[in-house]
Amino acid sequence: MNTRSNFDQSLKELKALQLKMAGEAETAIKNAMLSLLNQDIELAKKVINGDNLIDNLEYEIHEKALMLIARQSPVAKDLRRLHVALRVSSEVERLGDIAVNIAKSTVHIGNEKHVKELIDIPKMMEMALEMVTDAITAFYSEDQELARKCAEKDDQVDEMFGDLVKELLTYIPQNPDFTNQIIQLAFVCRYIERIADHSTNIAENVVYLETGNRFNLNA
Amino acid sequence: MNTRSNFDQSLKELKALQLKMAGEAETAIKNAMLSLLNQDIELAKKVINGDNLIDNLEYEIHEKALMLIARQSPVAKDLRRLHVALRVSSEVERLGDIAVNIAKSTVHIGNEKHVKELIDIPKMMEMALEMVTDAITAFYSEDQELARKCAEKDDQVDEMFGDLVKELLTYIPQNPDFTNQIIQLAFVCRYIERIADHSTNIAENVVYLETGNRFNLNA
Repeated sequence: MNTRSNFDQSLKELKALQLKMAGEAETAIKNAMLSLLNQDIELAKKVINGDNLIDNLEYEIHEKALMLIARQSPVAKDLRRLHVALRVSSEVERLGDIAVNIAKSTVHIGNEKHVKELIDIPKMMEMALEMVTDAITAFYSEDQELARKCAEKDDQVDEMFGDLVKELLTYIPQNPDFTNQIIQLAFVCRYIERIADHSTNIAENVVYLETGNRFNLNA
Repeated sequence: MNTRSNFDQSLKELKALQLKMAGEAETAIKNAMLSLLNQDIELAKKVINGDNLIDNLEYEIHEKALMLIARQSPVAKDLRRLHVALRVSSEVERLGDIAVNIAKSTVHIGNEKHVKELIDIPKMMEMALEMVTDAITAFYSEDQELARKCAEKDDQVDEMFGDLVKELLTYIPQNPDFTNQIIQLAFVCRYIERIADHSTNIAENVVYLETGNRFNLNA
């Protein structure tokens, strides 16, 4: 194989590893949400203990990408491609951390009956997860259009976050014994809002890859 | 100049840029805290608007580090040095984001009188800022000992976070009208706890640089 096809083959392997990592992070987030909804402490602990795998994948991706830069001295878009691979894997690692944070909130709440049925939190999560899927797909297929579409949803998640926290707080005066649970749920809303932010960051990296210019799609 | 001294000179310039970036992030955090304590909305807005500078520095550092890898093909510890430079600048960028989050909480609270004098929050912040300083110094001087010392403080900050949020919640039943402010203060405690986490991450990178092995100093 010549150098170019070596490079392309290495890039392909790197991308496969990144897809694997993104899949692990998505599963962790979904399981964290399920653990919260079903008050499934065992599942929450599984999410917490599984985060090491995602952290290790990030290191593996970083090391492979840097070795590739050192060995092949890519320029222009090829160098940007590897830059973006580094940045996106760091964003995905943060998604894994957020899954852990949500799982920890599940553990904090424990078996205490929910102050109300959780309806809007999973709705907000659904929207944030759509953004994750769009951002990863846009990254994988280098699709600027989809990246911009993904980032557009961020405002909606922000709005839901504000409304949801406001609503949650109204439950406290009538349910002072549930204050701890309610604050944990407010934290969860904040974590979901962060999932949307990290998805937007991934989308921005897709635009950077194509144009070489940084855009703040989140402004 | 030979290649080695070229490389060393470039590394030196990169580190100077990183120190500048870390200084900006520290100032942003301190100003965010001041804006919260003094209910200084103007200062909070300055922090929010100033974050672009920190984001741009991160990109500049990433681009310089990757160009250096592509041009000089460093190996072993030199390659790790640049890997760590990339990772540390991303952690510092998150510190800038946290300053923005705290400043946004200041804006949310606005001019509403504080439900109580803020004493423990600045104490917790003081400890987190000590960790930032130690982590950055350890990074700059490649001082493993200091990196480990820094990471040891993380548990104390975590404990303060738990205690503080618990205490904050006790104010809600007697002060239901202050619920929104109290939840903002709980978020601020969470942000400070994240500052300690990012400092620990920087410290872990210093240990990785020296040993080539990843350590979870935060476990």
